[in-house]
Amino acid sequence: MSLKAKIVKLNDSNPPSPPFSKGGMGGFRVNSRLDGIRASFKGIDGFLTTDIDNIRYLTGFRGSSGFLLITKTANFFVTDFRYKEQAESDVKGWDIVIEKEKRAITVSALAKKLGINRLGFESSVSYGFFDALSKKGIVLKPFKDFIERLRAVKNKREKLLIKEAVRRAESAFLELKPYIKRGAKENRIAAMLEENLKKKGCRSIPFDTIIASGRNSSMPHARPSEKRLNAGDLVVIDWGGEAEGYFSDMTRTLLMKGSDIGKKKEIYNIVLKANRKAVSTISPGVDGREIDNSARDVIKKAGYAEFFGHGTGHGVGLQVHEAPHITWNRRERIKEDMVFTIEPGIYVPGVGGVRIEDMALVKPKGAEVLTRLPRGLEIIK
Amino acid sequence: MSLKAKIVKLNDSNPPSPPFSKGGMGGFRVNSRLDGIRASFKGIDGFLTTDIDNIRYLTGFRGSSGFLLITKTANFFVTDFRYKEQAESDVKGWDIVIEKEKRAITVSALAKKLGINRLGFESSVSYGFFDALSKKGIVLKPFKDFIERLRAVKNKREKLLIKEAVRRAESAFLELKPYIKRGAKENRIAAMLEENLKKKGCRSIPFDTIIASGRNSSMPHARPSEKRLNAGDLVVIDWGGEAEGYFSDMTRTLLMKGSDIGKKKEIYNIVLKANRKAVSTISPGVDGREIDNSARDVIKKAGYAEFFGHGTGHGVGLQVHEAPHITWNRRERIKEDMVFTIEPGIYVPGVGGVRIEDMALVKPKGAEVLTRLPRGLEIIK
Repeated sequence: MSLKAKIVKLNDSNPPSPPFSKGGMGGFRVNSRLDGIRASFKGIDGFLTTDIDNIRYLTGFRGSSGFLLITKTANFFVTDFRYKEQAESDVKGWDIVIEKEKRAITVSALAKKLGINRLGFESSVSYGFFDALSKKGIVLKPFKDFIERLRAVKNKREKLLIKEAVRRAESAFLELKPYIKRGAKENRIAAMLEENLKKKGCRSIPFDTIIASGRNSSMPHARPSEKRLNAGDLVVIDWGGEAEGYFSDMTRTLLMKGSDIGKKKEIYNIVLKANRKAVSTISPGVDGREIDNSARDVIKKAGYAEFFGHGTGHGVGLQVHEAPHITWNRRERIKEDMVFTIEPGIYVPGVGGVRIEDMALVKPKGAEVLTRLPRGLEIIK
Repeated sequence: MSLKAKIVKLNDSNPPSPPFSKGGMGGFRVNSRLDGIRASFKGIDGFLTTDIDNIRYLTGFRGSSGFLLITKTANFFVTDFRYKEQAESDVKGWDIVIEKEKRAITVSALAKKLGINRLGFESSVSYGFFDALSKKGIVLKPFKDFIERLRAVKNKREKLLIKEAVRRAESAFLELKPYIKRGAKENRIAAMLEENLKKKGCRSIPFDTIIASGRNSSMPHARPSEKRLNAGDLVVIDWGGEAEGYFSDMTRTLLMKGSDIGKKKEIYNIVLKANRKAVSTISPGVDGREIDNSARDVIKKAGYAEFFGHGTGHGVGLQVHEAPHITWNRRERIKEDMVFTIEPGIYVPGVGGVRIEDMALVKPKGAEVLTRLPRGLEIIK
């Protein structure tokens, strides 16, 4: 049985294949995800997805450009010439179309060929694309975070890959550890950590590593600089790993031995308490705002409310920031098998910053913390 | 004179500062760019930009999130808590606002405070954001590729930085060269090249390096694999450098010594001819489609039309793919000081692929090729 995908031409008069007629592991796995999408077809003839991570989620495709059109009876994967061979080998159970014109032209030609014109679309697409499609007579219905909400709940394979991404990041950090010492430059430490991540098998790095010491550490998203680690510096290290396209994200804060570090220790212990408190709040059914509030409340009661201005966490998967968003102004119903970070912080300009970030997996009761690196205060001599 | 930016609170009743009242180098440089934007204020009270590269272009801000609101008389830079300190130190001549609510709420509160409600916006923003703002009573007028078109023409500083990004990429490649030999693994070569880029001073890497050998080389965007370089393989190497946020992008194709390489040499020389031909077509005033066609015509006449399915080039700057787009279905009027790639290729499944990519700067007459690495066929023993 051949699993080779069928290439469909837009001027081809053959009918498209029924979905997954050819089976295969990729097909079966993807099929249940597509069932979820088709179950939401109300008032639309098909669903259009252009978000590259959503495409990867549904097809396994690893290229950087394409779109999917999922109708009641067929699945089209559309990409350009650059990914033709890759699509033929990677994408199973989809009819493959190679686009040669601007995207809106290709979508409307395909819809016309199929005799449909009411399409659901991701509200994350650009206004320009929405407008171009509308002008071609396509009737569009927005779906907000539709596939993103499916992606937020991880299956067995995804959980394994995320755990592997955590393990690689931890292992890269442990090898770096002896080089984090007084006099080392922030940007050199960052480069070494990224080299270690590659050595551990990460094919890509989810975001530029943050190494922020001393006064830089009070900027939650500082970029590594030429600055050297000094006595008494807080050192925020925020990095992530990868495994088969799935990411991890974690932060540890170290303290360089020095005089007058009492205030820094105090801040550290408040953040640690906030982290632990938030983790203990996780459970299926709670609202993400409750989790955020549990960490925020610890910090507020300690008198540092104004120094913790970001959300408590975010989902991690094919993107390093994805649903659910654990923050004060987003309602998010927490579900079993979601994976997200817990990362409270306190940032005091002129003193320094502390952030302690772990990744948590939601279990039937409570949470499993995936990040296993110690999180107690460590003072570097 | 203090250059410290003024922090504006949305419930603050003080009037905003007039633009650039405090002067400073950042202010002067940015001022002329803003003049160009204000000159286009027809039927709008202000222009909203959320594209992070456009924000960096206009303000110098290096963070990952924020938006700008430019009115006839004031400039607002809005970001979140994470970037408060960085914005205060980096962004000169703008009134800084820290957003605490969802973006559409912040934009509408700011517009209300200023007594305006007709805003120009980038058509690249998401449909969801457009819709949320519309529902808040903001009247929105799309501007397609507005700032992107300004960005396409580089000033003196930008040209210097792009040249430096090219130099770093070339230097990283030359140090890698001795390791490109029979038996080396694609992914190991890619990791070494990226390490070299960091060593040369690149703080970020514009895209995952492509090392595609043998049958992988016929996929224009292949990912490096565990495959080792074999006798007779074509090896496509596509990588880029960075300097102060500006990128470079280049491709070289090597041929491993082997028997039966006549066809591969033939393909190489056709692509080289197409590259040279396209470069010779560059001049202010020509349409990008003419440049694309000049390369495509060489390949077509040699009988390989179907094996060159992507565009001939793209602009490079703060993004590695930006305006202008040099392809068959986009009209682009070429202007002096644009910088873009010329990268024809031929990809024959089962045989292999060749791509030769240089970066060109448009001069008053013709083009300066910024990429100086040799581009004649090199056979690796």
